[in-house]
Amino acid sequence: MPAAPASVGFRLEDVDTPALVVDLDALEGNIARMAKALQGRSVRLRPHAKSHKCVQIARAQIAAGAIGVCAQKVSEAEALVAGGVADVLVTNEIVGKHKVERLSRLAREAKVAVLADDAGNVAELDSAARAEGVRLDVLAEIDVGALRCGAEPGAPAVALAKAIAGCRNLRFAGLHAYHGTAQHLRSPAERRAAIDAAAEKAMATKILIESEGLACETITGAGTGTFLLESESRVFNEIQPGSYVFMDADYNRNAWDEGWPHFEQSLFVLSAVMSVPSPDRAVVDAGLKASSVDSGMPLVRERPGVEYARASDEHGVLKIAAGAKAPRLGEKLLLVPGHCDPTVNLYDWLVCVRKRRVEALWPVSARGMLY
Amino acid sequence: MPAAPASVGFRLEDVDTPALVVDLDALEGNIARMAKALQGRSVRLRPHAKSHKCVQIARAQIAAGAIGVCAQKVSEAEALVAGGVADVLVTNEIVGKHKVERLSRLAREAKVAVLADDAGNVAELDSAARAEGVRLDVLAEIDVGALRCGAEPGAPAVALAKAIAGCRNLRFAGLHAYHGTAQHLRSPAERRAAIDAAAEKAMATKILIESEGLACETITGAGTGTFLLESESRVFNEIQPGSYVFMDADYNRNAWDEGWPHFEQSLFVLSAVMSVPSPDRAVVDAGLKASSVDSGMPLVRERPGVEYARASDEHGVLKIAAGAKAPRLGEKLLLVPGHCDPTVNLYDWLVCVRKRRVEALWPVSARGMLY
Repeated sequence: MPAAPASVGFRLEDVDTPALVVDLDALEGNIARMAKALQGRSVRLRPHAKSHKCVQIARAQIAAGAIGVCAQKVSEAEALVAGGVADVLVTNEIVGKHKVERLSRLAREAKVAVLADDAGNVAELDSAARAEGVRLDVLAEIDVGALRCGAEPGAPAVALAKAIAGCRNLRFAGLHAYHGTAQHLRSPAERRAAIDAAAEKAMATKILIESEGLACETITGAGTGTFLLESESRVFNEIQPGSYVFMDADYNRNAWDEGWPHFEQSLFVLSAVMSVPSPDRAVVDAGLKASSVDSGMPLVRERPGVEYARASDEHGVLKIAAGAKAPRLGEKLLLVPGHCDPTVNLYDWLVCVRKRRVEALWPVSARGMLY
Repeated sequence: MPAAPASVGFRLEDVDTPALVVDLDALEGNIARMAKALQGRSVRLRPHAKSHKCVQIARAQIAAGAIGVCAQKVSEAEALVAGGVADVLVTNEIVGKHKVERLSRLAREAKVAVLADDAGNVAELDSAARAEGVRLDVLAEIDVGALRCGAEPGAPAVALAKAIAGCRNLRFAGLHAYHGTAQHLRSPAERRAAIDAAAEKAMATKILIESEGLACETITGAGTGTFLLESESRVFNEIQPGSYVFMDADYNRNAWDEGWPHFEQSLFVLSAVMSVPSPDRAVVDAGLKASSVDSGMPLVRERPGVEYARASDEHGVLKIAAGAKAPRLGEKLLLVPGHCDPTVNLYDWLVCVRKRRVEALWPVSARGMLY
């Protein structure tokens, strides 16, 4: 594993590069802003840990009122439970003997829930849970518009709920109704329309399930782009935003309604200028392996006229506008990643900084936990 | 660190997913094809290890005739030297006190060379080498058309060479003339034009440097897309292709001249189908954290009519054409990554397979070595 790029007490300027830096004031502010935004609302917060993959941040979220966290993979959940998190919802279908066995084993150590969208998979989960002597909470995933996983709302979801409820070692725990693509629709009106439609589908399905005599306890979904909409829907009673702790260039391109909490950018890639070949070009040491570009190039923080124009494996080429302050060789620049989640997954360490001093080094404990 | 997703002897079907799989027959074939393509040519092969980050592959390349390897970062070079590689060229500018100190320290353990494109950086390298009591080989990087790092060919490069040669603890070792963007020009004619121009600039610069009484021993560059052109140029005497050991979807989109060796695809992401929500859609468990999409989506191997249409953090959505064989829930599918280098960097293990049996597990020793 790579050594940490800094020690506690280092000045930001002395952190080795590229490094993943978290501004603790902004991070703590974001956790508090989320708690405040949910005050008096009848939704539970279960933040998604796939964004940070970090036990220390999960614990801070729980200390601020979250009931547990979400994870996306069994191995990610294992890393979080090993770090002391007691309640994890794996917001994913877990398929295959080896994986469902590990999931069931984890349920001996923590409260574990999982999704399903297929009756065959439900039977597989039941049999693994029985072999392990545990009872797993299972939510039926419904597709509310993201066109990814999930049963169709209505009758197919009812059949799935009954299949889950009919298993001795499973408990039907409710509906997972996450609308992923809605998170990045740019206008508040588009996002509202998408979540209104999602909530309607979830509600209609819940009513059908309850008419079969089954309790449909939890309805969960939502991300950083829409969570207040789900919270106001009277349909969802659990939400799972993740990126709000960090934010990224892509989320920062969304327009927000008035009254929406302003989450600050807390996550940065610290990079160093390694070449200044011409007045209009500089090159930093952070490329594709240091910042995921799936949602666009990183942005250069607080350097007007300096644009991160293209990335190769280990280089980022900056375009310097005429008249802009030119970066010096060796100068350290903060980049705002295009997309926080896959960027965090590139690093073993979060360098936690307050007022430009390193205060802590947190391992990204679930980094690379793909299985 | 994540546990290995398989054990030796596993059938491919039993490897946990997502996993990075290497077909050993194809890998060994590619290493042999490169050796054969260079037979009788007056170029040395120094493959780029940034593609594989794996000591075992570096050793196999050296056993097949490579003189050493290239690395892109000091920490990457450290990991390779720790694994027994004795000769590493860091094909990058290494800037900043901490980094140049580490580089100089490494030169006590192995033959180490590095690039420079700035006189201030040259002085910094010299002073670190002196403090460590070593002599570093330094190549002047010239920009031959990629518009990234590098001094301008001609007079600026001559000045740089003289600055290097004037340092007591540095040795001017030659020119680095790598044309990165040429590698992915789609037609052989475009690539040939780019490398002809690059070779001309390198040659003219070499002549100028030699006219100052300085030897200009090495001229190095080239990648998988162009290496035969540099090899035939009579200018380059060292080449540094990397991706040929693996190949990827992006390189496979290049058209190749007749007589160009056919490198086989040896690198795959093994994924599992985790949801089949409709006849025209399936979802695999390999998304942005399992395959870098900077150069396009992965391709589904040997499944005509099945297209990897979009990636989210942990999901890949497959579009199934009418009439195509639909993937079953739990089925394992091989994906060809869009871009091999940043994909390899996402994994801790290479699962080495021969005839669909796991033969070895190789650590990606320089994974995450960003510094």
